[in-house]
Amino acid sequence: MENAEALDVSRSAYREAIQVLTAKGLVESRPKAGTRVLPRSHWNLLDPMVLAWAFGGEPDMHYVRDLFELRAIVEPEAARLAAERRDRSDIAAMKDALTRMRRFTLATEQGREADRDFHSALLAATGNAVLMTLSASMGAAVNWTTQFKQRLRALPRDPVPDHLRVFEAIAAGDADGASEAMRVLVQLALDDTRTAMQKMLDGTPQS
Amino acid sequence: MENAEALDVSRSAYREAIQVLTAKGLVESRPKAGTRVLPRSHWNLLDPMVLAWAFGGEPDMHYVRDLFELRAIVEPEAARLAAERRDRSDIAAMKDALTRMRRFTLATEQGREADRDFHSALLAATGNAVLMTLSASMGAAVNWTTQFKQRLRALPRDPVPDHLRVFEAIAAGDADGASEAMRVLVQLALDDTRTAMQKMLDGTPQS
Repeated sequence: MENAEALDVSRSAYREAIQVLTAKGLVESRPKAGTRVLPRSHWNLLDPMVLAWAFGGEPDMHYVRDLFELRAIVEPEAARLAAERRDRSDIAAMKDALTRMRRFTLATEQGREADRDFHSALLAATGNAVLMTLSASMGAAVNWTTQFKQRLRALPRDPVPDHLRVFEAIAAGDADGASEAMRVLVQLALDDTRTAMQKMLDGTPQS
Repeated sequence: MENAEALDVSRSAYREAIQVLTAKGLVESRPKAGTRVLPRSHWNLLDPMVLAWAFGGEPDMHYVRDLFELRAIVEPEAARLAAERRDRSDIAAMKDALTRMRRFTLATEQGREADRDFHSALLAATGNAVLMTLSASMGAAVNWTTQFKQRLRALPRDPVPDHLRVFEAIAAGDADGASEAMRVLVQLALDDTRTAMQKMLDGTPQS
């Protein structure tokens, strides 16, 4: 509570803040010992709020590499499960999202929403609630790390063909094809992100 | 704040509780609209505290299936990366943990700590901070779902040989071997958990 005075905030505001940091695994409070910051290895690096705090606004190259390495492990296998388990309504939801992605493009908020809907529908088709939780975290982290892309030149590549290949394999119940198409999609996304980060580091003029 | 009165708790205790639930993605507070519970698909199902709340003490069969499905995707690939990237100190840490697992056995807290140390050392060897975060969450969720095993008969199988095979492949830098040994280890753990849950459901007398 001396901290609250030192920081010139009310005791209740201080207590609330510590509760949030505790809930996110950043600090630990013990009777008598007080509150201490936990080592970074305890932090939840899949929580976008934690990420924003940890990296202070600019994404970190190592973090982006680690995140895409995890996506490359999880997402092809999620596509495989979706191909094995999808039903008619899953296929309809993915198809609808793809149509909207094509119509609105990723330059608009509607188009980006359609992109998120496509991936949500794919995950719903896996029937695995833990995979959905993880992918929501990864998706939020990816959005956070790639926000800066929009400050740079719009990416030239049309994402619809990559998504269409994933969709067609899932709709056809082709598990290996779906896994392979998703592997390619994640790899292309990583390449785009690397290019965008490199441009940012080089200070290429922004249009 | 009417809720605080209805629940007969202080306003500050109520506010602190809501901050924690918000930080964990369970509820959302908006000006004027008040606080509402978010749909379960928004909950963080890799947070052990959330799990304990969601399932009220007894693990749910579907959840356990989903969790092991994710482990079966992620852990063999983590073992593969560990085999490719481990250094001398990673190998020494895994070997030390394995020695303690053998000496103390999983029937003791020291032995279970050695088991956790083995998996932590393996993850540290991947050099991927996001993978470490995820595996810590999965590990905590696994512990939570398998606590009940200890209320049942101790499991008959010795876990050391499975872990030794993973260790030897990683130490040898054999990526495919490490992945395959870890796939087997996760499958055996799932079989044990299924057996324990079935016994619990059948009400087999507990020794």
